[in-house]
Amino acid sequence: MEYRKIKDDEDIIDRDVEVADADKSFLVSVSSSSDGETKLDTHRTKAQWKRKSVVTFALTVLTSSQAILIVWSKRAGKYEYSVTTANFLVETLKCAISLVALARAWMTEGVTENNRLTTTLDEVIVYPIPAALYLVKNLLQYYIFAYVDAPGYQILKNFNIISTGVLYRIILKKKLSEIQWAAFVLLTAGCTTAQLNSKSSTNTNTFVYECKAQGFKRLKNPNILTVTVPRKFRSCSSNSRSRLGDGNRELLTFVVMALLSGFAGVYTEAIIKKRPARNINVQNFWLYIFGMGFNVVAILVQDFDAVMNKGFFHGYSFITFLMIFNHALSGIAVSMVMKYADNIVKVYSTSVAMLLTAVVSVFLFGFHLSLAFFLGTIVVSVSIYLHSAGKMQR
Amino acid sequence: MEYRKIKDDEDIIDRDVEVADADKSFLVSVSSSSDGETKLDTHRTKAQWKRKSVVTFALTVLTSSQAILIVWSKRAGKYEYSVTTANFLVETLKCAISLVALARAWMTEGVTENNRLTTTLDEVIVYPIPAALYLVKNLLQYYIFAYVDAPGYQILKNFNIISTGVLYRIILKKKLSEIQWAAFVLLTAGCTTAQLNSKSSTNTNTFVYECKAQGFKRLKNPNILTVTVPRKFRSCSSNSRSRLGDGNRELLTFVVMALLSGFAGVYTEAIIKKRPARNINVQNFWLYIFGMGFNVVAILVQDFDAVMNKGFFHGYSFITFLMIFNHALSGIAVSMVMKYADNIVKVYSTSVAMLLTAVVSVFLFGFHLSLAFFLGTIVVSVSIYLHSAGKMQR
Repeated sequence: MEYRKIKDDEDIIDRDVEVADADKSFLVSVSSSSDGETKLDTHRTKAQWKRKSVVTFALTVLTSSQAILIVWSKRAGKYEYSVTTANFLVETLKCAISLVALARAWMTEGVTENNRLTTTLDEVIVYPIPAALYLVKNLLQYYIFAYVDAPGYQILKNFNIISTGVLYRIILKKKLSEIQWAAFVLLTAGCTTAQLNSKSSTNTNTFVYECKAQGFKRLKNPNILTVTVPRKFRSCSSNSRSRLGDGNRELLTFVVMALLSGFAGVYTEAIIKKRPARNINVQNFWLYIFGMGFNVVAILVQDFDAVMNKGFFHGYSFITFLMIFNHALSGIAVSMVMKYADNIVKVYSTSVAMLLTAVVSVFLFGFHLSLAFFLGTIVVSVSIYLHSAGKMQR
Repeated sequence: MEYRKIKDDEDIIDRDVEVADADKSFLVSVSSSSDGETKLDTHRTKAQWKRKSVVTFALTVLTSSQAILIVWSKRAGKYEYSVTTANFLVETLKCAISLVALARAWMTEGVTENNRLTTTLDEVIVYPIPAALYLVKNLLQYYIFAYVDAPGYQILKNFNIISTGVLYRIILKKKLSEIQWAAFVLLTAGCTTAQLNSKSSTNTNTFVYECKAQGFKRLKNPNILTVTVPRKFRSCSSNSRSRLGDGNRELLTFVVMALLSGFAGVYTEAIIKKRPARNINVQNFWLYIFGMGFNVVAILVQDFDAVMNKGFFHGYSFITFLMIFNHALSGIAVSMVMKYADNIVKVYSTSVAMLLTAVVSVFLFGFHLSLAFFLGTIVVSVSIYLHSAGKMQR
């Protein structure tokens, strides 16, 4: 059943690729004809809106199911595989999916300037930068986890929302209306409120999002695994406060991490949007090929002995493959959102995914939702409404 | 120091009465001259805005200091006075202040159609209705406290915000823009979030607002006094949920109470605004004279023996008189806000007062503020911004 769900998501991505292609051939027909331009514009706006909605929906569902798969795999007690090999497979799968989509484009359109795989140094030089930024951020994460535990980390991580907004404004020079800024502040406050937990059952909930947020790259990190242990604390608020009060250096590190994370996202959007006519699958291919490279290095440094002695696929289970599939599709969905929407939409999408995960967990794992979660959800919902209402009056 | 504060507030009210008078004589000059109307309009709008701001500020400060005085008096351990006699004195003081303000108006303007104290049955017949509604609500409150304890009550009481908004729309037929409705939902969510408490110190905080909300009419109510006892519970959320789940009849009672409370407020505004030119002090006089009447009945029914045996002022202390002064001024400020602003402004004002009380309590009583309080304050602040931003685009 879970597998079929992922199949469906894959279909959504495929369908989206088709929509993207249809839209492109449509663009060609617009340039060749000159009458009825307003009608064509309306049609194009509608197609763009539809495509944007589909990729955003796909990202939300994939991000949410990603968190659920992680909890499921933890319950099943399977973590014996090498995380670096799994990450490598995710990047490889993303590359493969991009190539398949490209092959289809070549068959229908032929090889054009925009969908050819070969590239210039000028185009490709910027692609390793996001991967490098994420690497620095992950290194800092190891440092911060010595001082801040997971629930505190989770609360602070919501600053990423604000940093993304600020960097989006500064780097991409796109304006948000005052109402949209207000909505962004509300999104941050709402997400944090939804994560205020007072009972053990909802601590598990915090943990879900925590894992999701970091991807399953960090499943083996002992700092993450301890999250389920200290169920005794009463609320995140008192805990995080005391923890954060310990040192300004840690808070500074956190600000740097939030900025790095936001910057990596906004930079990826800048790279992808710099060449709007370029086929997204080519852009993805080059993004992911560097991801593969980074993960080869990670395997050699971290898990070389394990892979040599126990084999590449040691410890893999059915659910491990499901997670790899899910991560690959989520990664592609993120790129699609960067191409056809923006980082703001991505932030909203992952926030909604966090709430969705908690609701689904009620049915799947018997989690309980707190009043704080309910209030946070209301605030996030109003924030989404205001974001679109603010767009109109911009 | 506290006394001087109240003196200052009284000055604000006096100053406001002067502004109101100045504005009225100004209105006369407008009707006699016909040139430069736009400039005069601007001046009048500015004067109205100033008056509205002053009364709103006064209400916020008075409501906040009211809650602080109650905690202070509880700490001093003085509750031996008869609550009904104190309420009677509050109403009497409000009547007296209204008469003093009226006497000043008569001296400057002479007795006019709008400031004469005599009235018609048609005008006066509606004045006992708000008092009667509050009486029914207070009776229901005794019933509900058998089922819901104070923190749960406090959480549910935020529905008053929504009921006020809905009744304001229906009865007074005033429109709120979509953004303003969103702001109202946020105000409710933000206030509730700010009241989510997980520590004993902040439970006292809940108690402060609880007392404030009900006025000190209920200081002797054992249900209220128990609030400080069960400090052991971990969070309002889990408590209120289990309590609320017990019966739909209690929830229905609560909805009725929220509607009654909202209706009483909106109805008072309707009465006061029905005759916009009528002097507010005359309107207050008639509102308060019925309040005095109701409280005489309450003394006879509830505290007749105590008053006869121990005397009217038995158990009064300096702080009791301070509280009576404060309540009288707050009551007048509410009427002024109804006259010169509206119920929406009143709701925002008392919500801000709740937050202000908590912040001041940090310094006065060493309370601690939770992360939930901080998040709730952010949401309430954004709500206030959106309320005014939404006004412009209406």
